[in-house]
Amino acid sequence: MKLPHRRQFLHLAAGAAVLPAVQPMTPAAAQSGPPSTREVPARSIPVPDTVSPEMQAVIARPFNPNFNLVPETTTDWKKRVDDAARNVLATLPRLREALGVSVEPTMMGGVKAFIVTPKAIPPSNRDRVLLHLHGGVRVFNPGEAGTREGILMAGFAHYKVITVDYRMPPDFPFPAALDDAVTAYRELLKTTRPENIGIFGASAGGSLTLTTLLRAKAEILPMPGAIAPGSPTVDLSKTGDTLFTNAFVDNLLGTQDGFIRATALLYANGRDLKDPLLSPIYGDVHGFPPAILTSGTRDLYLSNTVRMHRKLRAAGVEAVLQVWEGQSHVQYMTDFTAPETKEYHDEVARFFDLHLGKVRP
Amino acid sequence: MKLPHRRQFLHLAAGAAVLPAVQPMTPAAAQSGPPSTREVPARSIPVPDTVSPEMQAVIARPFNPNFNLVPETTTDWKKRVDDAARNVLATLPRLREALGVSVEPTMMGGVKAFIVTPKAIPPSNRDRVLLHLHGGVRVFNPGEAGTREGILMAGFAHYKVITVDYRMPPDFPFPAALDDAVTAYRELLKTTRPENIGIFGASAGGSLTLTTLLRAKAEILPMPGAIAPGSPTVDLSKTGDTLFTNAFVDNLLGTQDGFIRATALLYANGRDLKDPLLSPIYGDVHGFPPAILTSGTRDLYLSNTVRMHRKLRAAGVEAVLQVWEGQSHVQYMTDFTAPETKEYHDEVARFFDLHLGKVRP
Repeated sequence: MKLPHRRQFLHLAAGAAVLPAVQPMTPAAAQSGPPSTREVPARSIPVPDTVSPEMQAVIARPFNPNFNLVPETTTDWKKRVDDAARNVLATLPRLREALGVSVEPTMMGGVKAFIVTPKAIPPSNRDRVLLHLHGGVRVFNPGEAGTREGILMAGFAHYKVITVDYRMPPDFPFPAALDDAVTAYRELLKTTRPENIGIFGASAGGSLTLTTLLRAKAEILPMPGAIAPGSPTVDLSKTGDTLFTNAFVDNLLGTQDGFIRATALLYANGRDLKDPLLSPIYGDVHGFPPAILTSGTRDLYLSNTVRMHRKLRAAGVEAVLQVWEGQSHVQYMTDFTAPETKEYHDEVARFFDLHLGKVRP
Repeated sequence: MKLPHRRQFLHLAAGAAVLPAVQPMTPAAAQSGPPSTREVPARSIPVPDTVSPEMQAVIARPFNPNFNLVPETTTDWKKRVDDAARNVLATLPRLREALGVSVEPTMMGGVKAFIVTPKAIPPSNRDRVLLHLHGGVRVFNPGEAGTREGILMAGFAHYKVITVDYRMPPDFPFPAALDDAVTAYRELLKTTRPENIGIFGASAGGSLTLTTLLRAKAEILPMPGAIAPGSPTVDLSKTGDTLFTNAFVDNLLGTQDGFIRATALLYANGRDLKDPLLSPIYGDVHGFPPAILTSGTRDLYLSNTVRMHRKLRAAGVEAVLQVWEGQSHVQYMTDFTAPETKEYHDEVARFFDLHLGKVRP
């Protein structure tokens, strides 16, 4: 009976040696008022057995080996992006076939995009379109690699999806991505009533969904019918409690300090990280359409998702939140065969169906 | 610039020495398939500065010094309960006065209860009643000490509240509390239409809200109009990912292994901890009324709240979730002057208003 315990202590010691200690960014806070930092000991966290076997396998994955490697040159950045895109692209034919989805390139007011179409679109969705802003920490998933989330949504939720292939760093930092997203939205408004448009995206794409709405408001464009930001990275400054509590708990992102922070700086290109068009948590969200936000209990961006949810609620927006057991960042769509992936898309589909414009009889 | 870093390492070492390492309960899981435990290093977590100053003070509190002290005799349990009740009672006169709420004892079919009445009840709420099942890990808050949550709800949400003073261990283990809650609900149904009844409670009271509905279903009683389980402890077995990830992050509960587990065993009195009437996450929740569930990012029971939310959603129940930045277990009601406390009650009031029966013109 004692052997497993001893083995766990060994694991624990090994973990402590391999992983750096997590440092808060604001040591000054410790100097005023009550002791303001919580000291949390090392721990060994088992995979929950209440999620599907497929999700258990996702949760059990070791840390992403690249989570702390920061490219030093533009060439290094591009190689990193290309390598990742190649990996994603290799998975897409099987995904498209399994979900019965076709993808074709298009242009929207000079912006590259892809039309992602499921085999069958029910009559209730025939006039509706979902605009998709993909994730990838603002640097990954150029070109067709960006369509993966769109294929999942088209296949599971039975909507026509348009994936915007927005420009990204290192060649195109802020505001290129936002410009492209707003241009695509403006183009879509020429053919589709705003209440029939949903906008969605994960991570950086969830944040871009929100900044697109901030910009649309400023340009007096109508709001879309509903949005679905998945684990949106709404705060590029190191703010959000789970950036600390879930550091090295989130197996996809590891910590915000390494690669993630480098991508934020690369995208911001010298701009204040708390600018609302970079970090929409600091924007004015009054008048936003209904929103469904998603995160996981191990997500580094759980806090920023729930902060955004509360901010939307406080502004009187009909915003709902779902948080998934044991999942790290955007793992609700990691394995398309996991029942949680279908359940996530079913929830979002129901939400869009409830809030987007109805077919007129 | 290096001094704060060094000081933090000292804090870190001190924390590691004071606090025991967290051990998972199922080391067997580590032996099959991929490496199934996550090794997480010690960390120092600052108080988030994006919450109110009042909430920052709550989050900055040191660990509850009693979180790991387990009473050994019935006398010890009673002393612990009495001491805690005395502390709560001392705060109630000021709370009642500040919120303009009066409290009077009553009986409901032989069960002790309190009628908690705000100064003014708006016309829309005049036929509605909220049944309140208080928290306190199934042993705390006997008698008038149990009315604290009821006073907050009556004062902030402007409803008439009935707090059930259900029997508790060590004298009265399961099913005494559940029997009393169902008896009170059955009595209330004699004077109030079910759609005009809301049931709410925090922690153990949130779980008791759900087991009361399971029992009501089995006894073919009508469902109430809506429920509001706050951070419900819906699983008394050591199941739920944040029991591990948030151990020693949650400053109220610390860990599930010490006092919390002892109260679960005391209440269960030998019964299987996964019995749905002890742990409603294992029950059949089809047909449940609309529910608003609440937790915090540091809550030991965040996972069990989100698991329950998902279970309700999967059963087709209109269930909404709110999660509060940086809060440990039920800290949405710790300081009644914190704006988050009012915001929480405003949300719940809106939810009840939306879903409870409307006054007939």
